[in-house]
Amino acid sequence: MSSSEDEITAWFGQQRRLSPTDFPIGIGDDMSQLALGQGVSVLITTDMLLDETHFDLKVATLQQIGYKSMAASLSDCAAMATIPVAAVVAVALPVGFREEQLKELHAGIVLASDKYDCPLVGGDITSWKTDARLAVCVTMVSRPGEKPPVRRSGATVGDVIGVTGSLGGSGLRRHLEFEPRVQEAQELARLADLHAMMDISDGLSTDLNRIGRQSGVGAMVEAAAVPVSVDAGTQAEPLQAALNEGEDFELLFTLAPEQWSELHRKWDRPVPISQIGRITDTGRMQIRMPDGRIEELKPGGYEHLTG
Amino acid sequence: MSSSEDEITAWFGQQRRLSPTDFPIGIGDDMSQLALGQGVSVLITTDMLLDETHFDLKVATLQQIGYKSMAASLSDCAAMATIPVAAVVAVALPVGFREEQLKELHAGIVLASDKYDCPLVGGDITSWKTDARLAVCVTMVSRPGEKPPVRRSGATVGDVIGVTGSLGGSGLRRHLEFEPRVQEAQELARLADLHAMMDISDGLSTDLNRIGRQSGVGAMVEAAAVPVSVDAGTQAEPLQAALNEGEDFELLFTLAPEQWSELHRKWDRPVPISQIGRITDTGRMQIRMPDGRIEELKPGGYEHLTG
Repeated sequence: MSSSEDEITAWFGQQRRLSPTDFPIGIGDDMSQLALGQGVSVLITTDMLLDETHFDLKVATLQQIGYKSMAASLSDCAAMATIPVAAVVAVALPVGFREEQLKELHAGIVLASDKYDCPLVGGDITSWKTDARLAVCVTMVSRPGEKPPVRRSGATVGDVIGVTGSLGGSGLRRHLEFEPRVQEAQELARLADLHAMMDISDGLSTDLNRIGRQSGVGAMVEAAAVPVSVDAGTQAEPLQAALNEGEDFELLFTLAPEQWSELHRKWDRPVPISQIGRITDTGRMQIRMPDGRIEELKPGGYEHLTG
Repeated sequence: MSSSEDEITAWFGQQRRLSPTDFPIGIGDDMSQLALGQGVSVLITTDMLLDETHFDLKVATLQQIGYKSMAASLSDCAAMATIPVAAVVAVALPVGFREEQLKELHAGIVLASDKYDCPLVGGDITSWKTDARLAVCVTMVSRPGEKPPVRRSGATVGDVIGVTGSLGGSGLRRHLEFEPRVQEAQELARLADLHAMMDISDGLSTDLNRIGRQSGVGAMVEAAAVPVSVDAGTQAEPLQAALNEGEDFELLFTLAPEQWSELHRKWDRPVPISQIGRITDTGRMQIRMPDGRIEELKPGGYEHLTG
């Protein structure tokens, strides 16, 4: 297609105006929010995972695929510091898919479901009639924690930009086994007033651009401060891997500098948090390289500033 | 696969015990119910529609496919007499799928969304990397109406069995254009105390067997009373078409006989309702043919009783 998924999604979001009373958060964030009266609301996210695109049936086990499908949606719940409630899973099975295989896929789903206390409450099992590949669609419902859901659009000039864990090289192994940051997100929200947050699914460079665009701000990332994963370190260009590869499923968040100091002091989880830069008023997404040069941080990579 | 979808679904449902307080309705009904506190609950359903299985891209327009995908889930909301709240839609696009095509699919989704007041609040757009077919996964959230959601398991011996509209021949045309019985379900629930209800997606014979099994009862259908659609009437065996073809998306419900009389008297909707039989204590699903013979009503068809 000629447009990016972000552009198409924005276009879809513009086609119908949602009532902000009934739908406080609509199309374009990690989850949408449905207000149900009595001060009760739920959030919802749907993700389609495809063979050869999001996993490879030739190398991943079905249990890994089931786990990953759930974990990706759990990461969306974490992205807004919300609490998973339940999931439904629809599958499209290739011709000849066996019952034992379906049960293996189910075992992976239940592994994530049990670990993150998010019961599987329904689903749909369909089969392709002719040659086609496995698709797994997980839809997850969450509820707000003690604080309102954290959106992508709240980043403020001067904010510290933080990330959990380390980035890059996920494709080697971690993308099938990652631990969605559900608890860490709750802890971040408890210890600080987060201005913006999302999970890093398409790479730091792409996802930070989303926060910048949706918040109407710029950013300056310090390349030397980006936590490069061990797996990214084995690659030809570790920094590029950390910035661009995606499927990290770590949290990317912003908050006031004094809040960051307090948060960093109190943080005692095994998963580290790092300050990687600041939100700016330049309107530009930039990165300061280790040698001091400032480059433009584009979705999918950095390149020399023009003009 | 060796087991039917019903058997597999039942097996999945048995793997983890859901808390009945948090999940009053779990796996195995038209929707699952999530209790959220404050007396507030939502219901959720997910449906995967596949090219060549649920529609044929060679003959259906993308707008029709979008409409049908939403309408099938709206029919699930109707099946329990619940009120649609919102939908999310995930799509897996074939290689070479164009932006205009995606917008046409979206137009069909919005057509149903507008008509049934069920906003599209989010989604996921993914693409196959190699040759594979269009998949559309709709997940819909509804809320209870004035009465609790009507389940499949409440049919009682002596109940009248009713259906809306007429059955069979949906594949000719109606399966792409049907009107989910959302309003009719609300009206049925308002006028009567429904004991059991579901929508007919796999054919009256199959779906009535589900109500019988989940309620622990038998049934006697009067073949002469089954409303055969005009489209089914053009086929070689109209009654078989009405009983077995599926994708009718009409409502199948049971209620006490005195309630039926009252309901039938007050019913003034354009969509008719018909009494097609009674719930029995025989433990058998049966059908009385126009010539008086009694046959077994099996999922997918009737056949001579053995023994």
